[in-house]
Amino acid sequence: MSLKLIAPACAAIALIVALCLAMWIKNREAGTDRMKEISGFIREGAFAFLKREYKFMAIVIIVICVLLCVFINVTTGILYVCGALLSVLAGFFGMNVATLGNTRTAEAARSQGIGSALKVAFRSGSVMGLCVAGLGLLGLGIVYCVLDLATVTQCVTGFGFGASSMALFGRVGGGIYTKAADVGADLVGKVEAGIPEDDPRNPAVIADNVGDNVGDVAGMGSDLFESYVGSIISAITLAAVAVSDAEVSGAFTEGTAAIFPLVLAAIGLIASVIAILCVRGSNDPNSNPAKSLDMATYISAVIVIVASLWLSKSMLGSFNYAYAIIAGLIVGVAIGKITEVYTSADFKSVKKIAEESQTGSATTIISGLGVGMMSTMWPIICIVIGIFVAYNFAGVYGIALSAVGMLSITGITVAVDAYGPVSDNAGGIAEMSELPEGVRNITDKLDAVGNTTAAIGKGFAICSAALTALALFVSFAQVSQLKAIDLLNPIVIVGLFIGAMLPFVFSAFTMNSVGKAANEMIQEVRRQFHEDKGIMEGTSKPNYSRCVEISTSAALKEMIIPGLMAIVVPVVVGFVLGSSALGGMLAGALASGVLLAIMMANAGGAWDNAKKFVEEGNYGGKGSETHKATVVGDTVGDPFKDTSGPSINILIKLMTIVSLVFAPLFGSGLLG
Amino acid sequence: MSLKLIAPACAAIALIVALCLAMWIKNREAGTDRMKEISGFIREGAFAFLKREYKFMAIVIIVICVLLCVFINVTTGILYVCGALLSVLAGFFGMNVATLGNTRTAEAARSQGIGSALKVAFRSGSVMGLCVAGLGLLGLGIVYCVLDLATVTQCVTGFGFGASSMALFGRVGGGIYTKAADVGADLVGKVEAGIPEDDPRNPAVIADNVGDNVGDVAGMGSDLFESYVGSIISAITLAAVAVSDAEVSGAFTEGTAAIFPLVLAAIGLIASVIAILCVRGSNDPNSNPAKSLDMATYISAVIVIVASLWLSKSMLGSFNYAYAIIAGLIVGVAIGKITEVYTSADFKSVKKIAEESQTGSATTIISGLGVGMMSTMWPIICIVIGIFVAYNFAGVYGIALSAVGMLSITGITVAVDAYGPVSDNAGGIAEMSELPEGVRNITDKLDAVGNTTAAIGKGFAICSAALTALALFVSFAQVSQLKAIDLLNPIVIVGLFIGAMLPFVFSAFTMNSVGKAANEMIQEVRRQFHEDKGIMEGTSKPNYSRCVEISTSAALKEMIIPGLMAIVVPVVVGFVLGSSALGGMLAGALASGVLLAIMMANAGGAWDNAKKFVEEGNYGGKGSETHKATVVGDTVGDPFKDTSGPSINILIKLMTIVSLVFAPLFGSGLLG
Repeated sequence: MSLKLIAPACAAIALIVALCLAMWIKNREAGTDRMKEISGFIREGAFAFLKREYKFMAIVIIVICVLLCVFINVTTGILYVCGALLSVLAGFFGMNVATLGNTRTAEAARSQGIGSALKVAFRSGSVMGLCVAGLGLLGLGIVYCVLDLATVTQCVTGFGFGASSMALFGRVGGGIYTKAADVGADLVGKVEAGIPEDDPRNPAVIADNVGDNVGDVAGMGSDLFESYVGSIISAITLAAVAVSDAEVSGAFTEGTAAIFPLVLAAIGLIASVIAILCVRGSNDPNSNPAKSLDMATYISAVIVIVASLWLSKSMLGSFNYAYAIIAGLIVGVAIGKITEVYTSADFKSVKKIAEESQTGSATTIISGLGVGMMSTMWPIICIVIGIFVAYNFAGVYGIALSAVGMLSITGITVAVDAYGPVSDNAGGIAEMSELPEGVRNITDKLDAVGNTTAAIGKGFAICSAALTALALFVSFAQVSQLKAIDLLNPIVIVGLFIGAMLPFVFSAFTMNSVGKAANEMIQEVRRQFHEDKGIMEGTSKPNYSRCVEISTSAALKEMIIPGLMAIVVPVVVGFVLGSSALGGMLAGALASGVLLAIMMANAGGAWDNAKKFVEEGNYGGKGSETHKATVVGDTVGDPFKDTSGPSINILIKLMTIVSLVFAPLFGSGLLG
Repeated sequence: MSLKLIAPACAAIALIVALCLAMWIKNREAGTDRMKEISGFIREGAFAFLKREYKFMAIVIIVICVLLCVFINVTTGILYVCGALLSVLAGFFGMNVATLGNTRTAEAARSQGIGSALKVAFRSGSVMGLCVAGLGLLGLGIVYCVLDLATVTQCVTGFGFGASSMALFGRVGGGIYTKAADVGADLVGKVEAGIPEDDPRNPAVIADNVGDNVGDVAGMGSDLFESYVGSIISAITLAAVAVSDAEVSGAFTEGTAAIFPLVLAAIGLIASVIAILCVRGSNDPNSNPAKSLDMATYISAVIVIVASLWLSKSMLGSFNYAYAIIAGLIVGVAIGKITEVYTSADFKSVKKIAEESQTGSATTIISGLGVGMMSTMWPIICIVIGIFVAYNFAGVYGIALSAVGMLSITGITVAVDAYGPVSDNAGGIAEMSELPEGVRNITDKLDAVGNTTAAIGKGFAICSAALTALALFVSFAQVSQLKAIDLLNPIVIVGLFIGAMLPFVFSAFTMNSVGKAANEMIQEVRRQFHEDKGIMEGTSKPNYSRCVEISTSAALKEMIIPGLMAIVVPVVVGFVLGSSALGGMLAGALASGVLLAIMMANAGGAWDNAKKFVEEGNYGGKGSETHKATVVGDTVGDPFKDTSGPSINILIKLMTIVSLVFAPLFGSGLLG
């Protein structure tokens, strides 16, 4: 079998497995009529958002495709559309199954037990995971089969751009959606009206549950789809450099170096499939669901490590390339664990925030920001060790390979990550359907694990974005034919400062957007409570769809400015200040963006768990002054960890790929 | 007269004027016995801190001097001691007069009116301003007279290192001191015991007033002393480059290019003296004190602009160098104004924070962080335009000149800035001495202006630190004989990531330090209230000195780790990863540090004024829920704007100057 066919073939296998898992989920019992009804509302809301989003996306896709066809070339334009559509498709399938899986998870918890519920929730997430990696690899694999090598290396960046621009919708739009709904639902429902979370009388409750799917399933999936595709593309574009950097000249051809990342990704995908099928929970109520999920990650990582050693030696004639891959993989897993240390209540940082919250919300905030800032240290040290090892063994091509290595297990990572929101939704459905307390206990337990996996997933997403952006940055320099991007050239410093500023301004925009959208939501929920007293008495139904509509409109509207910023700024800087300044800008945005993203994500996660820690009865428990202080921390942390932080991933990748695509047009700049 | 003598001569004039102003202040009426007593407590506390600090500093100075003598050379070691001692001396004189000026300002307000009070307060600050610039210039001028040019360019960095390491004590130690006292005094006094600010029954009240002098006078002065000296040093070390970059070869010699920044600084100092003597307030109660202060800044700026054009043409044969200087000066003034827009209640950002505080403290925090992040945009745009203009007209030497240009008016800038804490103290003394309400109204008015000038001063300090660090960074590359610091070299990227991380971790340390120290203070104040009921009844005196002691010890102890970090990390990176990685690290720290510092300083300033805006009766006024929310914002903002933010200035300059001093020892690194 030709090497070229491995990637599409493995992708096809993974997609078939995803289809089988989807059928398996669909055929399970969906629960009581009430459960079906609520799940129906959530599905309806989710698809209403998707539909509106697709209309918007269609315009963007057409406009950018035309621009690419005119200014770059038609092949790039077509590949752009392919990348965009596959990203959309992955999100669509994933969300479709996630919104089927939520009620079935609740039903499994009700009729069978924790093990079965875990299995349903995890398999629902797995469909997303396999779709993300499977469709990404299928698309790139087919591109590689259909086009000749020169065209691939020249135009495949268009595919990445497509994935990136859709990730903008997914992550930024989805992030604004989910937090506007969450904050709105909490502030009026929990705080003002005093009704519990997920109470069906709260008009924003469906929007909140839709948000879990929109932001945490589809948004996160599109982010990792972008990283996955981007890392492979970067390795392909650096294949020629790999040949000239090789220790033994003539050890391999450019074609081999270009197909190597695809084969590696294919093996990673199969490893993910195997690991996914290995996860089966125990129905023993004392079992720890986190262990099965961890085990799945380790299984796939070990398979990739072994395979990469063999592949590296047999295809590229040296183990060195495998070391780069393994470095990336280990860094990815390690950063997940580090994230856990800073954001889980089992460790001292979160406990300290809870303790210091006794002196009020100001100390909660200061303490949480301190934890977030401190938590940047070890991830950055891991990343630089990864870069150092990868480069020393395999040059700049090695840096791209380490990103591919880290992302080779995307299938399983996304599966574990998407499991969280499915469990969260299942809990919501259990609450709204008034299922017995035992059911809610099971879903709470699954949800708690989901919170940890979500934090780990965020750490992984940031670091993979960093490594991908770095690899694409190297590709950009290659395509721009820059011999050096010299920090002693003041124009590069100018770029560096502008770049370092962008994540701050971008975050300011996304945070303000959440504030504005949440405010609209608050007004609407208050209005409904005020105008129809029957809602609180439970005699009349709130207007859920009005809240869904508000979140949807806000998400799409508020996304425009940050989105334009990510696309327009690199093009303007490239034209006005030239490629060197643009290179400096990308490096600046990468450096400050990664730090800000880690800080925000971990501070948010830590505040969230500090609140839960207090709710478990520590320092006065629920309702105490300490608890109120931690609620303030959690509310600040919500846009931090679910909107602004993750959105920075998109910013740094999208700006880099825009620069890469348009690189041939930039010279030394109008002012350069 | 030889050109060499201009700098020491002008410095001497400025110092004589400072002495006269000091005598003038000392001879004024110090007020009632009660006022004298309280002012005496503050002086005592301030000098107690200085004494403890000096002991600590002496050890540091000796250790570093020995290291420099052994590893670099004896001249550098001696210059290090000179730089350190002059920095200490400037702080000592400045604080001495500031602690005399506070009660005299209160007395002038009591017996004469707002104009006289303004004059006393401003002249007290002016002594600090003239000492900072005068002693800096005197030291460098004498160094230049005594040593030959080759030795100067080689060893003068030691002088800068001395200034930097003392600024660490001033800014970081002072920042921790002042905020520990402030937060401690507020939380127990205002919030728990319900007594007003500056109430003499509060045991921490003296420590709080001491803190204003320690942090905002001496700390700020040492920060700008460092920038002032650093920018001139950078220009001197780049003199040789200036000669080879000159349009007309042979237009001037290295000696001329090296002495040029000294002459420029001398003129700036004389301009500051003139401007300071022009400030005379009107006793009309409706007059606006801010105008006189603004006018002083503009007068000195115009003098420098005119003089720089003439100097540039006559000494260096072209107007181009003046353009670089003017660019720096305009950027400095512009950034002050931009800072005002984001932090003053006259503009929409602060009003928006106040408005959003109606939905609770979480929205206060989110909104303030949003403002802080957004406020980074224009300052960065100004800085890059400044860099761009300076470089295009005068090469890398021009970048150093623009920093010198910005800092040439340090005398007046520090004067305006130090005026704030003197007025603040005057208000405290008026309150504690139970002077009539009219007096307090005057000091409040002066204090309100002081808050704005403090915010502007912080903006100026950050941007001048950025430009100085950048200039020193260029010098570092020169001394290290680096032809390029190439971002395409992964070891540079490794450095960049490490560098970008350091300001975050450093800020985490300083914020935690404030938290810890404030906590100790809270316990002590509570203990005193608890053990001696007479304090609250006004029958027995609280133990002020115990609180002063707590702040002093905490400040010195908590400074050690961040201080070591700033000195040790660049040396380790230089030795292990080599000069290129170190260059990347400095650039990364500069980029992320400046952003973080602007964000923290402006968010803090905006929160502070949002609270004041609500206190003026907006959105429910004092005591309302909205007010409580803004108090939370202000408490978070305190360490932001007065400890962590300004401390980052020191971090980026100190790391750069350490790298510059030790540059000859670094090669390509152990792992490079």
